[in-house]
Amino acid sequence: MSMSPFSLPKISPVTHVLRDKIREKIDTKTKPLGSLGALESVAQQIAEIQNTTSPSLRNPKLILFAADHGITEEPVSLYPKDVTWQMVFNFLHGGACANVFAKHSGIEVEVVDAGVDHDWDKSTIQLLQKKIRKGTSNFLKTPAMTKEEAYLSLQNGIHLIMDDRYKDTNVFLFGEMGIGNTSSASMVLSHLTGIPLSKLVGKGTGLNPKGKETKLEILERAYLRTGKLNDPLEILSEFGGFEIGMMAGAMLGAASNQKVFLVDGFITTAAFFVAYHLNPLVKDYAIFSHVSDEEGHIIVLDHFQIRPLLKLNLRLGEGSGALAAYPLIELSVKFLNEMASFADAGVSDSETKS
Amino acid sequence: MSMSPFSLPKISPVTHVLRDKIREKIDTKTKPLGSLGALESVAQQIAEIQNTTSPSLRNPKLILFAADHGITEEPVSLYPKDVTWQMVFNFLHGGACANVFAKHSGIEVEVVDAGVDHDWDKSTIQLLQKKIRKGTSNFLKTPAMTKEEAYLSLQNGIHLIMDDRYKDTNVFLFGEMGIGNTSSASMVLSHLTGIPLSKLVGKGTGLNPKGKETKLEILERAYLRTGKLNDPLEILSEFGGFEIGMMAGAMLGAASNQKVFLVDGFITTAAFFVAYHLNPLVKDYAIFSHVSDEEGHIIVLDHFQIRPLLKLNLRLGEGSGALAAYPLIELSVKFLNEMASFADAGVSDSETKS
Repeated sequence: MSMSPFSLPKISPVTHVLRDKIREKIDTKTKPLGSLGALESVAQQIAEIQNTTSPSLRNPKLILFAADHGITEEPVSLYPKDVTWQMVFNFLHGGACANVFAKHSGIEVEVVDAGVDHDWDKSTIQLLQKKIRKGTSNFLKTPAMTKEEAYLSLQNGIHLIMDDRYKDTNVFLFGEMGIGNTSSASMVLSHLTGIPLSKLVGKGTGLNPKGKETKLEILERAYLRTGKLNDPLEILSEFGGFEIGMMAGAMLGAASNQKVFLVDGFITTAAFFVAYHLNPLVKDYAIFSHVSDEEGHIIVLDHFQIRPLLKLNLRLGEGSGALAAYPLIELSVKFLNEMASFADAGVSDSETKS
Repeated sequence: MSMSPFSLPKISPVTHVLRDKIREKIDTKTKPLGSLGALESVAQQIAEIQNTTSPSLRNPKLILFAADHGITEEPVSLYPKDVTWQMVFNFLHGGACANVFAKHSGIEVEVVDAGVDHDWDKSTIQLLQKKIRKGTSNFLKTPAMTKEEAYLSLQNGIHLIMDDRYKDTNVFLFGEMGIGNTSSASMVLSHLTGIPLSKLVGKGTGLNPKGKETKLEILERAYLRTGKLNDPLEILSEFGGFEIGMMAGAMLGAASNQKVFLVDGFITTAAFFVAYHLNPLVKDYAIFSHVSDEEGHIIVLDHFQIRPLLKLNLRLGEGSGALAAYPLIELSVKFLNEMASFADAGVSDSETKS
């Protein structure tokens, strides 16, 4: 594969042309000013992204990116690596949490093989095949991927989202599956933010304190292999996962197409900050769905002063937090479109406004 | 009206017969142990209340209790008292936030006149007429209601919920509308908990700091009228609202019928604690939906070590927080019923469990 010149799609800043009109529409609804709190912010953001006072959510898709991680050669995870491909089957057969939650909200689930260590049979025809390689290399010993592969993972994500299959979709939920990927996400986030690994390494799928300590020791050794890095593409290639790179690309693609997307938990947040360090404008299009129970998540969100919608101590990944928050996104859009105004309903406004 | 002998329906403690079986069902789902956090607790609670490993949510109803408050003779609220009856019209015509949110989840909205200062015309036939009086008396000067009225408000709530119309409903959401009722709720909660009014009095529908200070001064004078009270029925009669009494009764009725109910914001929480002080077993049947932006709410919830599902800075009342949390209740029940187990899906379990 030859290295393409490094290019990313242009992202337009969200226009504020309608900001005051949207605010006015929110403020004349039959409720005390500001009383829908975070839901008002979400409504305002989506309306501005879509540049309309009557926003909509069309054909929402959950895209799950799956990949394996060479770091699982080391004792960093409670579950065997095979769980990655087994869970892909579970997604395709509708038995996972992501399927149940998505069905509740009428969201279609699409599963992408970004780099799973498995040969699929014909029963997996609906799997989107974007495999770069059967899992990354063990980043304790060598870079997880080449720079070409890192770049390709981004481009694959961008192209996926910009494909015609999503032309009628204006809101995405991104999630992931990959045994070992909290390790990868911790490394990526530590390099991007400068926050020490000791604050970013957590229990993952459920390590006990001793297991977590071992994981931290391994990741600290991996950190010494390179020392602090600053270039997001280099960080992605040294420590990333194919699903992380592809999600980062998908986020850049969604933002470039002026589409809303929901960020899920710790790993999705790592992908987001790879994208953010490539183009900070991606943030305007992101809704942060939840603070997960993975210890480093709140540290990173606080670092960037981000306040997600939910805190339910979820730590499942696979888009479950984004799916749990999705009804709140729907309610935000609906109150803006469907609630009566004071004038419509003949309700007296407050004395300070009238 | 003659005073009936004081009687309340019996509440059975939730049985724990199936506790381990429910836990086992949750733990064999294809996800890391405990990884659905608060949703696992909700699933466990509802399954135990219904004494089944396959719980259901049937014909959910939002019941909105509306009433007026004599304390609005004093400058405690930003909105005129007429907003109470005007918003009742808005509920009946489907234009309020409660209607929009309820429709989203297929929840029927029922509106109860517990004591609104308005004569209804024929267009309001669907309003449930339980008016005790056209609003309470001004509790700065006299008891808000007589003890007989306080008792009657409880009984009205109990009888409403136990009525045949709700025999196919197994989950309730309770909400309220009543200009002036954050004042009433602050008084009730201060007496029930011993927490000083200065910590429980907030901005209500949006008072500025000066307005809030005036409200606090008025409520502190009202507090001096009686001194600290301890009997919940006396507290309700001195400072309550008809909607607060009726909601407390409805909660006791729901618990007595072993039905789940969602507690909304600050005023609904005040009603809950009236019920709780009459029979603490009511707590087993309650799901706390959110921490509102009304300043005293988090204080009271912390006092009782309650952690609600959402914190979205809502302060609208009318069941909006309970409605925002309802999709999470649905997801909790659905993951328990619909997710595949490790065995079903052929997914490897963690090494510590297998």
